[in-house]
Amino acid sequence: MSTPSARLQELGIELPQPPAAIASYVPVVRTGQLAVTSGQLPLLNGALTHTGKVGAELTEQEAALAARQCALNALAHLKRELGSLDRIERIVKLDGFVQSALGFSRQPVVINGASDLMLEIFGEAGRHSRVAVGVNELPLNAAVEVAVWVSIFAD
Amino acid sequence: MSTPSARLQELGIELPQPPAAIASYVPVVRTGQLAVTSGQLPLLNGALTHTGKVGAELTEQEAALAARQCALNALAHLKRELGSLDRIERIVKLDGFVQSALGFSRQPVVINGASDLMLEIFGEAGRHSRVAVGVNELPLNAAVEVAVWVSIFAD
Amino acid sequence: MSTPSARLQELGIELPQPPAAIASYVPVVRTGQLAVTSGQLPLLNGALTHTGKVGAELTEQEAALAARQCALNALAHLKRELGSLDRIERIVKLDGFVQSALGFSRQPVVINGASDLMLEIFGEAGRHSRVAVGVNELPLNAAVEVAVWVSIFAD
Repeated sequence: MSTPSARLQELGIELPQPPAAIASYVPVVRTGQLAVTSGQLPLLNGALTHTGKVGAELTEQEAALAARQCALNALAHLKRELGSLDRIERIVKLDGFVQSALGFSRQPVVINGASDLMLEIFGEAGRHSRVAVGVNELPLNAAVEVAVWVSIFAD
Repeated sequence: MSTPSARLQELGIELPQPPAAIASYVPVVRTGQLAVTSGQLPLLNGALTHTGKVGAELTEQEAALAARQCALNALAHLKRELGSLDRIERIVKLDGFVQSALGFSRQPVVINGASDLMLEIFGEAGRHSRVAVGVNELPLNAAVEVAVWVSIFAD
Repeated sequence: MSTPSARLQELGIELPQPPAAIASYVPVVRTGQLAVTSGQLPLLNGALTHTGKVGAELTEQEAALAARQCALNALAHLKRELGSLDRIERIVKLDGFVQSALGFSRQPVVINGASDLMLEIFGEAGRHSRVAVGVNELPLNAAVEVAVWVSIFAD
């Protein structure tokens, strides 16, 4: 198994420029062997890639791409904070919020867009616990929001 | 005070077969002295016990039973991961999401179905912090979703 | 930089009497160097300061005050648990839930009411990671609910 940073290259994935926080908080906080990201929106180059209610204004496949973008942003922030993704021991937990149209109940399929990225990049260490829920509204009308807890190798 | 596993027997509670994950994640991740479960649905023998919007399609009493079932599933997963519930030092946090009809604001009563189970089984060590919120949609139209953080005794 | 308890005095902020839990849980749990609060509502002297759907029944400015009240209650509980706010090393994470009218997507502005308080009192140590989402319903029809993770100085 390659390192996560090597896997990124093999997969041809380039992490985005970490998006700026849109309010009075920071993207990542470390405490002990844990680091936790703020909730990430599907921002790319300063604009949201996917807005609207999933199940009405966009499909679950489109929303899964949004979730993947959220996860890429989380990883971009973690890389900047830690220096390298190779310092991540384990993806511990992923919290996924899907802006859902009434009657849409396939949030797990949507959040798989984020989860699958973690497996692609981190392999076994990417297997995480997860909460996936629907909500009626998200910031900026984003389709998805994802936050991530990781553990870090001891120095 | 009995051990949690003895309490289970005294209470006549049989933990369910841990339900399979319905997406690309794992049921429990351990990190340091913490373990965190994925969001659990009220699954029993592969089917949801309670679906629909609480306050419209089902009552808060019914939903409290759903929350209890979620908590049983969380404990079933923790037991499988840890070998025994007696390795749990403390129920640290419980996150409860209630699929709520518009105007339903008694989420605490619903999530008490999960919280009370923890107190029954773990006594003082079952007293946890908690977040209980309403959401418009949950996976598979489940009435409730519950995730749990616990701390583990040092080996 | 003053200590957090000195800052409270300088700012003329008096922490409220910690509100009683409204269900079967406890306000704060400590585990290792972490402490986590239960979800706090904008309670003051036993009554909610702000109810209703943000964006319809109350403005984002009013809701930001509700978020600040939630954060004050979280700090009141932490102070009681820890003896002093000066034992807090870092505000690690803040989870904010905004009871949102359909179409309201400025949850970050609302939760800034809580985040800004942390910065005022803790300075750099108050800079936290954050999740801000909208939900359709909250307990007791509260406008906002906020939970907080902090790290504690080693004894």
